[in-house]
Amino acid sequence: MKFSIERASLLKAVAQAQSVVERRNTIPILANVLIEAEGDSVQFRATDLDIEVVDRADAKVDRAGATTVSAVTLNEIVRKLPDGALVTLTEEGASGRLTIEAGRSNFSLATLPREDFPVMATSDYTTNFSAPAPVLRRLFDKAKFAISTEETRYYLNGVYMHVSDGDSGKVLRCVATDGHRLARIDAELPAGAEGMAGVIVPRKTVGELRKLLDDDELEVAVSVSETKVRFATPNLTLTSKVIDGTFPDYTRVIPQGNTRRMEVDAAEFARAVDRVATVSSERSRAVKLQLEDDRLILSVNAPDSGAAEEELAVAYSDERLEIGFNAKYLLEIANQVDRENAVFMFNGSGDPTLMREGNDMSAVYVVMPMRV
Amino acid sequence: MKFSIERASLLKAVAQAQSVVERRNTIPILANVLIEAEGDSVQFRATDLDIEVVDRADAKVDRAGATTVSAVTLNEIVRKLPDGALVTLTEEGASGRLTIEAGRSNFSLATLPREDFPVMATSDYTTNFSAPAPVLRRLFDKAKFAISTEETRYYLNGVYMHVSDGDSGKVLRCVATDGHRLARIDAELPAGAEGMAGVIVPRKTVGELRKLLDDDELEVAVSVSETKVRFATPNLTLTSKVIDGTFPDYTRVIPQGNTRRMEVDAAEFARAVDRVATVSSERSRAVKLQLEDDRLILSVNAPDSGAAEEELAVAYSDERLEIGFNAKYLLEIANQVDRENAVFMFNGSGDPTLMREGNDMSAVYVVMPMRV
Repeated sequence: MKFSIERASLLKAVAQAQSVVERRNTIPILANVLIEAEGDSVQFRATDLDIEVVDRADAKVDRAGATTVSAVTLNEIVRKLPDGALVTLTEEGASGRLTIEAGRSNFSLATLPREDFPVMATSDYTTNFSAPAPVLRRLFDKAKFAISTEETRYYLNGVYMHVSDGDSGKVLRCVATDGHRLARIDAELPAGAEGMAGVIVPRKTVGELRKLLDDDELEVAVSVSETKVRFATPNLTLTSKVIDGTFPDYTRVIPQGNTRRMEVDAAEFARAVDRVATVSSERSRAVKLQLEDDRLILSVNAPDSGAAEEELAVAYSDERLEIGFNAKYLLEIANQVDRENAVFMFNGSGDPTLMREGNDMSAVYVVMPMRV
Repeated sequence: MKFSIERASLLKAVAQAQSVVERRNTIPILANVLIEAEGDSVQFRATDLDIEVVDRADAKVDRAGATTVSAVTLNEIVRKLPDGALVTLTEEGASGRLTIEAGRSNFSLATLPREDFPVMATSDYTTNFSAPAPVLRRLFDKAKFAISTEETRYYLNGVYMHVSDGDSGKVLRCVATDGHRLARIDAELPAGAEGMAGVIVPRKTVGELRKLLDDDELEVAVSVSETKVRFATPNLTLTSKVIDGTFPDYTRVIPQGNTRRMEVDAAEFARAVDRVATVSSERSRAVKLQLEDDRLILSVNAPDSGAAEEELAVAYSDERLEIGFNAKYLLEIANQVDRENAVFMFNGSGDPTLMREGNDMSAVYVVMPMRV
């Protein structure tokens, strides 16, 4: 194998591929990236056996071939090469080494045979659709904070992507919850997604996926089977196993009858929650909300260290209400609001509370109260 | 005690004071900052029993007094208050609480009695001089990377500041070494420093001191006794115990007879060292330098993972030389060079090597070779 490639293209491809590689591997080849040169392009493939990333870059291929080298070391080397360098990668079958040349720099890296590299089996994708990158980005970005980290509830360790009924017809919906709070984000249903079976996209996949979705102009091809999900742009393909479990029936958790409405500037609210939470100890950051006559009083009482109180002007005309929440949860949902005011719909002080952006029902959050 | 203060002044003073506070304290009051209001200013005092920082800020004092509260919590609260806020701090003796008010925010923090706060004893300073902040900054900044972290060699865990003979008369000198490398930095001797006994300024003090020295215009008052050193600007005083030990006779370590001279672009050299070191494992990052006829070849050979080689144009006309160094040490000394080329003075491949900036003898570095 021999090919030459611009340092910038090489760095982009290798960096994206290597990010999926786990830092500690008991199986040595999983630390490697599979490089395959053919035609006028090179593919870089990395995997942790659950996720596979394949990255394509244009290159001048002198001799087709394939090999595997340490993903981290290759990435480090390329990162440190001078900007604008032309990099030549060569592998003579016999030596067991890949040489990397750029200017007066010369590296040789130990290789492992390409045959040992675990290429992910293709799946029988029953649903195929495409969606603009910003649409997918919104679906996953706004949901991911609520993903559970409890390993025993493995079926909550991801974002549940499925087709559901929205207020005006079918929608593509992402839901995540950890039992304390829930995010439900809807988007218009893309053509071809109608028959999709719901899949739980694992937390790590959601993180890796984010890197595919940065370019606003891109259209992303999504393929779903019973066991896998694939996201593809012209140069990058991310394939991931989905979580083998049943996502709970979240619809029962979303309160329908909450009528006590508070509207508040989301950024001001978040800053106030952040401030009053300062005096409390890390673990039990309970913030009390007292609502009465367009006035919200946020307070925290930590007998050992101190107390804090803050007043905010809000829109609230229902009867007096006192309710407590975990400060971190309140902050996280308030931070999801980016255009309009946050609207909270309360019921009693022991009931789940709903939050949305203005009157927009396409992104809805639920948070459980705590006793204060 | 009651006073009002601009949020920005308060934040600056509290932030600088609290940085000396250790995160984990067995003695509760060491987590606190002592606040003393009197006249038209407020002092914030924090200590870890080895270092004491006193920070002064202008304030409108309505009622003089003093108390102590958690330095970290106070800093967090002030940081989160809106920019431009006027903050009022009040303590009623009886309540055992300090209240902090700003706009519609209201905090109350648990206090501990001012009497329990360990104020550092004053010392009998026998030497007093002053020096511009940039001069002191250079002395400590260029030396500190060589401070030893080995706790058993406690007398190397700091920068040795003393008066010595330079090439053209007496100098103020800072030296640090860990036995593998050494930094020796000189500055013109300030008036009043002549009779100073050498002191070893501890690593943590060097770090805290750095924050005093950021303002190029400031003149810093330095006071030295047998057991303490004090650095003071109009608003900030840093007092520190010095290390109770004898700094070894470093002069014997600095090679005098090295004649084989290599001159190289320091930045290019550092980047090349960084690149070739990539292929080696973390621990034994040995880089080999081969010198011959204005040509430097840097190489690393790590049998398990790979090899790297890089060629640099240098000025070198002595006989052929091969010598190995720890890559990290080479990088660190190369990074000290900021104006001119790095000049290396070699002897044999087993002998300590000297590095300086051009022909400037006011900053000299020594690095021990390693076998490659």
